[in-house]
Amino acid sequence: MPLTPSFDFTALDRVAGAVPGLDIGIARGRLLGLAAAPAAFDQTAVLTALLPGLPAAIAATAQPAIEEVRRLLLEGLEATPDTAAPRLAALRAELVRRELDGFLVPMADEHQGEYIPPAAQRLAWLTGFTGSAGLAVVLAETAAIFVDGRYTLQVRDQVDTTLFTPLHLAEQPAGAWLAETAKSGQRIGYDPWLHTRAGLAGLQAGAAKAGATLVPVTSNAVDMVWKTRPPDPLSPLQVQPVALAGEDHRAKIARLAEGLRAEALDGAIISAPDALGWLLNLRGGDLPNNPLGLGYALLEAAAPGRVRLFVKPAKVTPEVRAHLGESVAIEAIAGLGPALAALGEAKARLRLDQATASDALATRIESAGGSVALGSDPCALPRALKNPVELAGTRAAHERDGAALVRFLAWLDGAVAADTALDELAVVARLAEFRSLDPRYRGASFDTIAGFGPNGAIVHYRASAATARRLEAGSLLLVDSGGQYQDGTTDVTRTVAVGPPSPEHRDRYTRVLKGHLALGAARFPAGTTGSQLDALARLPLWQAGLDYDHGTGHGVGSFLCVHEGPQRISKLPSTVALQPGMILSNEPGFYRTGGYGIRIENLVAVVTPRDIAGGERPMLGFETLTLAPYDRRLIEPALLDDTERRLVNAYHARVRATLAARLDPAARAWLDQATAPL
Amino acid sequence: MPLTPSFDFTALDRVAGAVPGLDIGIARGRLLGLAAAPAAFDQTAVLTALLPGLPAAIAATAQPAIEEVRRLLLEGLEATPDTAAPRLAALRAELVRRELDGFLVPMADEHQGEYIPPAAQRLAWLTGFTGSAGLAVVLAETAAIFVDGRYTLQVRDQVDTTLFTPLHLAEQPAGAWLAETAKSGQRIGYDPWLHTRAGLAGLQAGAAKAGATLVPVTSNAVDMVWKTRPPDPLSPLQVQPVALAGEDHRAKIARLAEGLRAEALDGAIISAPDALGWLLNLRGGDLPNNPLGLGYALLEAAAPGRVRLFVKPAKVTPEVRAHLGESVAIEAIAGLGPALAALGEAKARLRLDQATASDALATRIESAGGSVALGSDPCALPRALKNPVELAGTRAAHERDGAALVRFLAWLDGAVAADTALDELAVVARLAEFRSLDPRYRGASFDTIAGFGPNGAIVHYRASAATARRLEAGSLLLVDSGGQYQDGTTDVTRTVAVGPPSPEHRDRYTRVLKGHLALGAARFPAGTTGSQLDALARLPLWQAGLDYDHGTGHGVGSFLCVHEGPQRISKLPSTVALQPGMILSNEPGFYRTGGYGIRIENLVAVVTPRDIAGGERPMLGFETLTLAPYDRRLIEPALLDDTERRLVNAYHARVRATLAARLDPAARAWLDQATAPL
Repeated sequence: MPLTPSFDFTALDRVAGAVPGLDIGIARGRLLGLAAAPAAFDQTAVLTALLPGLPAAIAATAQPAIEEVRRLLLEGLEATPDTAAPRLAALRAELVRRELDGFLVPMADEHQGEYIPPAAQRLAWLTGFTGSAGLAVVLAETAAIFVDGRYTLQVRDQVDTTLFTPLHLAEQPAGAWLAETAKSGQRIGYDPWLHTRAGLAGLQAGAAKAGATLVPVTSNAVDMVWKTRPPDPLSPLQVQPVALAGEDHRAKIARLAEGLRAEALDGAIISAPDALGWLLNLRGGDLPNNPLGLGYALLEAAAPGRVRLFVKPAKVTPEVRAHLGESVAIEAIAGLGPALAALGEAKARLRLDQATASDALATRIESAGGSVALGSDPCALPRALKNPVELAGTRAAHERDGAALVRFLAWLDGAVAADTALDELAVVARLAEFRSLDPRYRGASFDTIAGFGPNGAIVHYRASAATARRLEAGSLLLVDSGGQYQDGTTDVTRTVAVGPPSPEHRDRYTRVLKGHLALGAARFPAGTTGSQLDALARLPLWQAGLDYDHGTGHGVGSFLCVHEGPQRISKLPSTVALQPGMILSNEPGFYRTGGYGIRIENLVAVVTPRDIAGGERPMLGFETLTLAPYDRRLIEPALLDDTERRLVNAYHARVRATLAARLDPAARAWLDQATAPL
Repeated sequence: MPLTPSFDFTALDRVAGAVPGLDIGIARGRLLGLAAAPAAFDQTAVLTALLPGLPAAIAATAQPAIEEVRRLLLEGLEATPDTAAPRLAALRAELVRRELDGFLVPMADEHQGEYIPPAAQRLAWLTGFTGSAGLAVVLAETAAIFVDGRYTLQVRDQVDTTLFTPLHLAEQPAGAWLAETAKSGQRIGYDPWLHTRAGLAGLQAGAAKAGATLVPVTSNAVDMVWKTRPPDPLSPLQVQPVALAGEDHRAKIARLAEGLRAEALDGAIISAPDALGWLLNLRGGDLPNNPLGLGYALLEAAAPGRVRLFVKPAKVTPEVRAHLGESVAIEAIAGLGPALAALGEAKARLRLDQATASDALATRIESAGGSVALGSDPCALPRALKNPVELAGTRAAHERDGAALVRFLAWLDGAVAADTALDELAVVARLAEFRSLDPRYRGASFDTIAGFGPNGAIVHYRASAATARRLEAGSLLLVDSGGQYQDGTTDVTRTVAVGPPSPEHRDRYTRVLKGHLALGAARFPAGTTGSQLDALARLPLWQAGLDYDHGTGHGVGSFLCVHEGPQRISKLPSTVALQPGMILSNEPGFYRTGGYGIRIENLVAVVTPRDIAGGERPMLGFETLTLAPYDRRLIEPALLDDTERRLVNAYHARVRATLAARLDPAARAWLDQATAPL
């Protein structure tokens, strides 16, 4: 149980006390959970869903109280130069009490997702580091923090390196460090809910080399000393109607259960929240950017298939309960452990997702006598293969998103022409305004990246007051953004010239565009993986001695995560074939450190194109979903061949034809010139 | 020990008896072994090396006697409709004697190589099947033969399907068949020298499902009933001088031993004959096409590194013995088992090549108490990275090979123009003649594929009297061939128009050429694998709805195997990065079944190209080694862009400039028109 932060509840209790028939302590707990979730798009609706019977007048005015609590919950969460040393000392004292010689503190929650809630930000609380991935290993005399290449600079800015030695995850893995640093006989604790088996393996091997052992603990040692740890987030689940999901959740349960039976499995633990949401046609608001509710599902293989859903009961509204029907039972999270133990005693064999299932889940099953088949989440591939309804939804979402983006680009050009003072934060805010006019918009699908000049060369840049640059003539603005719409998730990058571009800007932009066009126009046979196609997007850069250090394409969900597996387009080997219905990004780039960044990103769907005249084999191809012009000012036509020129002109004609009706005359005029034939 | 075939030794004994100081039985045994090896390029030299002191006059005239023995040894080797049933019955009787319920008969020898000697052709002897890969499983009541997609038609032509059910290896693996067919308690024998551990795993799992077990035997059951089984091949080892190998074998031993020590290994078994040849700078003549001597080496890791070479002592000439020096001990093959047992008792940990090491090797070590680290042959990657001397050698070999090929192509055009009656066999013979004029030529690097019209569409076609087509105007001739030269191995495919080509011929040829050019001209960063580049060669076909069903590129040795790992360019995932010094083929194709075949193949070396102007990162690229014109009559210039046209013209100019001096005026005139700019 998280400890209650000690602050003034007066404002909150005014709301909590107004709920008829609900204990004020329970109501307050729900409000605290709501404050630990990100601000909802429709806060009033969320509030009345969590607190049934709350008078509308109070709900409408409760917003400031909740915002204040949210601020207080997050205040001081990240360690500072002043607080890091006492926090570390407190943790070490706790380890002494537990007779442990060390403890692992990963940036992870119980679901191993890309986003984790405040309650799981133990690494930030302990060290001050806020990157999206990392691990601290605390021993009695020494401690280290391991981060990947993205964060080697950031970790030194944020962390007191006299307390934690910053190390590069790839160059000196934590396992190797343990092998050198731990001492024989030492017992190093870890929270088995925060590690997968695969993640533990290297650490255990390293500890073993030193003669030390990793010891699972039943309560996290950090939580004992983190007195103001926020509660778990709480937001009501929402039904994703079958009119948008395209398949009833009972049908999904039935066919997945059949697949499990074919593998001689008794069931599967669904530990990834996006898999849970897809399977049950539910969405939630527990995490930023991705419409997910945290919880677990146990999918039982026995025909016709049944699900036991382990979530906080307060998340389940009457509407959700009615939607789920008889094939889904709701159980409290606390019931998950006993349920697994009971299955283990019955000698059940369960599929666990190797990428997201905690060691704790596997151990609970095995120690009771069951067996664990680590593998792919059974939802992963079916979820990736969007059905026709989802594809129609994503097309519609992309049309509206494209219109918003065109309005934004037209505004931007106008503002630059008028010499309006603009910085990156203003760009981010204005783009969000254009998107939020859409009634189906539910927020950004990730934090917008708006990087001008040198900031554009920082691949995972996020503007802040401290870093935001003023737009000035002579460089490039890279804007990577996306929206969550009820009918689809978007993700688009456009790079825009601010003032007259240089020949180098045009050369590099055109090379990136050539790769983007080659990939988008590729035909390929069934069985082809993204790693086979990745080079098509890079070749025009490679031929010039250039490259980019990120993947070319990631999977994208349907009003779900903007990063979704199992498919991808990347240098890394992949065994997942591209199949009709998959949505991927197509986003080559080029980055001059200290100079500028270029990225061009469309989302594409894998489709079966019309038969090719004279062709012999069925081929697959991509349908481009994103609708927004490339920047003609940055295209050097001499670098394009006839095919490439035709591709640009045809795409621009399609953008114009599709979006014109959604635009006012001014934006339409802007679009006409932006999409004029090359 | 193989049984001695019962035939007339009179002619052979005239030679055997002429060797001073050597028992006639021993001499005869060596002559039989020589006859079981392929015909040597210089038979007299081989003869005097194996039988020291043999009078030159007798050696010079012994050829017919040896040829006759070779014919007799191979006569009746493959089962026919008459002999298959009694052979199978004899094997089953032998199994009854041994109290076995079945036996595995793979197409494999003790080294798991691409070519196997006659003594190992047990599958052909038993079933009549002569493909390069396959497995028979013989049970008491039933038997099946498993082949891959290349051989599904051939197996039905060659094998009595009432005796052996032909099955497709991929669709119904032998393990799955055993699971269905074997009975509980059955003991199925296998020769542990003829299977790798990985190869056995699926078979063992299948048998286990049926409750049966696989039982290793100490003598092969087929050998007991194959009364005329040829002896093992015997040919003298030859020194590959350091002037051609580029690195002294002692230096190779020292650096590989150091690598083993770094992996905490005590040594490695070198089970692949090409690894053995590379490591010790030795070549041999035990197998067709590839200059290999069969044997094993035990590479000891202890500094400075030492090798125990297990081969038939008769293969080791005084010159070879002197070359090997003190860091290499020669031991009899029979000593290998005891040597492994002794190492096992000393608790040694040995690297075994997972691709070629027999189960017998691993078991011998483990059962004595040692441990086995299955992995890559330590020679594989160093061998693939050709040193500057090897690269210079291969360039020189390619120049001479290119000149021979140009003479052949000029002759072919002339013969077609003159309406000379020509079939595929005549083409094969004439090409061999042109190559054999070179003093460093040592034979074909594989059986020439010369396929005219529909035969060109059979990817692994080999012309025979029964299949050879007459060349007639209106179709294409595909010629895939290569030479073994002391300084390098070549492999080249050219497709030639016979008479006026059709528009379809030109379209398809040009598409294949576009892919071949794109791959050959690609730049790519360090770390790129062949599977990332494969699509470059296929894309022009894919865009037209076409493809080809083979890999795009294989590694090639340096006067070693024409198929060499670990690198390749293929749809299949690869984790081996392309690195400077690697030689690969670049051979996209297109095949119209029943119509014609097109393949264009050059060998290329991975090189570090000169810095690219304006480039930021070091890139790798390919240097094309093969020198022979593409067929301009088959190129449709309208399908080429400017870059592709420039690439063809530049390559043709290089071919002309490099080869002109090696050609007589007529061939030079032919080359001038064949390489005129597009």
